[in-house]
Amino acid sequence: MSRFASRAAFEAALAVLPVPDADATAAARARQGDLTKPPGSLGRLEDIAVFLAGWQGRARPAIKQGRAAIFAGNHGFVVHGVSAFPISVTQAMVANFASGGAAINALAGAAGLDLRVVALELDRPTADFTIAPAMDEDECLAAINAGAAVVEPGLDMLVVGEMGIGNTTAAAALCSRSFGGTAAQWVGPGTGVDPAGIARKVAVVEQALAFHADAPHTPFETLRRLGGREIAAIAGAVLTARQQRVPVVLDGYITCAAIAPLAASVPAMTDHCLAGHCSAEPGHIRLLGHLGLDPLLSLGMRLGEGSGAALAVSVIRGALAVHNGMATFAEAGVAGAL
Amino acid sequence: MSRFASRAAFEAALAVLPVPDADATAAARARQGDLTKPPGSLGRLEDIAVFLAGWQGRARPAIKQGRAAIFAGNHGFVVHGVSAFPISVTQAMVANFASGGAAINALAGAAGLDLRVVALELDRPTADFTIAPAMDEDECLAAINAGAAVVEPGLDMLVVGEMGIGNTTAAAALCSRSFGGTAAQWVGPGTGVDPAGIARKVAVVEQALAFHADAPHTPFETLRRLGGREIAAIAGAVLTARQQRVPVVLDGYITCAAIAPLAASVPAMTDHCLAGHCSAEPGHIRLLGHLGLDPLLSLGMRLGEGSGAALAVSVIRGALAVHNGMATFAEAGVAGAL
Repeated sequence: MSRFASRAAFEAALAVLPVPDADATAAARARQGDLTKPPGSLGRLEDIAVFLAGWQGRARPAIKQGRAAIFAGNHGFVVHGVSAFPISVTQAMVANFASGGAAINALAGAAGLDLRVVALELDRPTADFTIAPAMDEDECLAAINAGAAVVEPGLDMLVVGEMGIGNTTAAAALCSRSFGGTAAQWVGPGTGVDPAGIARKVAVVEQALAFHADAPHTPFETLRRLGGREIAAIAGAVLTARQQRVPVVLDGYITCAAIAPLAASVPAMTDHCLAGHCSAEPGHIRLLGHLGLDPLLSLGMRLGEGSGAALAVSVIRGALAVHNGMATFAEAGVAGAL
Repeated sequence: MSRFASRAAFEAALAVLPVPDADATAAARARQGDLTKPPGSLGRLEDIAVFLAGWQGRARPAIKQGRAAIFAGNHGFVVHGVSAFPISVTQAMVANFASGGAAINALAGAAGLDLRVVALELDRPTADFTIAPAMDEDECLAAINAGAAVVEPGLDMLVVGEMGIGNTTAAAALCSRSFGGTAAQWVGPGTGVDPAGIARKVAVVEQALAFHADAPHTPFETLRRLGGREIAAIAGAVLTARQQRVPVVLDGYITCAAIAPLAASVPAMTDHCLAGHCSAEPGHIRLLGHLGLDPLLSLGMRLGEGSGAALAVSVIRGALAVHNGMATFAEAGVAGAL
């Protein structure tokens, strides 16, 4: 099992990111040009197929073993009233995942993904990040490695998502710290707080940013201070997937915010990632711009749980069905190239 | 088999459009509120499930028998050099559909749809609509009824698409006639003509609009004069689906243009339709606005063949998986409503 032995190992991995296989990329691009359609007429489906070819290292990519990994954690700052729900809901939803009744169960099933739910010490919320780092170094590393552990050998694709009451507030703090912009520019209603709740979220983010202002601006330190266990786990999973050249589909605002500290340091960090969707949470579209990602879907979803990313896998499967299933001009005997 | 006995029967059908089942709609909406997620957090997936419930007349809609119907036709105006391809390509692509090698074969398969390809007298293109109506009344009615015939009893969903060299030019004429705007505002590159080709398309559309300017502005007459066989067939299929309360997923610019004359006359005509995607053809987004439709996907596709609509069915299946598969709060024992 892949894991990071230390903070230094985690940050060293960021410095040596693999790139996609050039031969497979070129072969897939050439195949797209041979298929019985005008060049480029399938738009992003063509790009998706070529992207997967490059990362999977084969001209005919496939998703035989695709996994949705959902990480759950609880946050100390929720004492400031930033969520409409008590943190007990995190555990209740994890139980719902286990019994198969949540949206991600339905969507992972529809997309042909296995589902791995990783609950991270839900009875031990992180420290209140307005007055302390959310995690100590060992806690953060353990969470990162819990994420790394889901990237088992043989995966063709990894979908990442999260569950954690209050975690849009942590996401806003991570985004502001990583890419600038005020707390108010990154805070939104989350699962549905009112304007007074948004004002509380802004204040909490501002306090957290001020408290940690003088801390080192490194990916690990930002995750440790302003993230949470589920967030650090996502960062660990996405980085480990990159090391193993497993393409990743990111879910919404929190999932993307989890890799913001990494991408702010190493912009190529998102090269193996697709943005599954654009969430209704207003900071997400802004964040996707910073990450250089164009979402596949934009359907007003704002649930988390990996739901938007899992849904996007159906589109990705369509891209692969075309890439692998269509005839070439030569095979079809269609006269001349379209 | 459903069919329209006359032009008058076709237009009479437009005057008595069924509406969705109110009880099923209300029951589905109530169910969405009971599922283990914050209200509205699945965005359009919730609306899609409720939409399907209303048209299928059951609180738990399903797509067991979904069909992609692709209509092919040839056009007389292509003598004016409006396409990059000869009309023989229409027949070649129909043969490719039959042998399973086209994009729609792969995408219909991935979406779990049966595929019905209807080639409409490909060796007998319509008349050149710059100097005559594209079809006489019997020809237009026959094409409409060829479309109606695909809506067999028991269908849960109908996806419509087309193949016809040159038919973005007909689509532009239909849009301008139906919703106003100049030829230049509705003409685009189609499968890839150059600026000189676009200028030829604009001139052809302008000539056609001028030639037919004084004709009656009725849906049938607009289809007959400015449409084509595949276009009239789509109109017949979509109207017949409405009569049978079968929800429809529309494909790109040409497919939507085929119902433009109907929707211009009766705006509620599109109530049973979802726009599968927004094509790269520039007139499509404008047309969708006139039709009151918000596309599910926007992936730069511009192939036709029903490809974008078939891909969108995967998203629709995700909406149904959630609607039918998720637990309610009561079932999950999650404390209180989220």
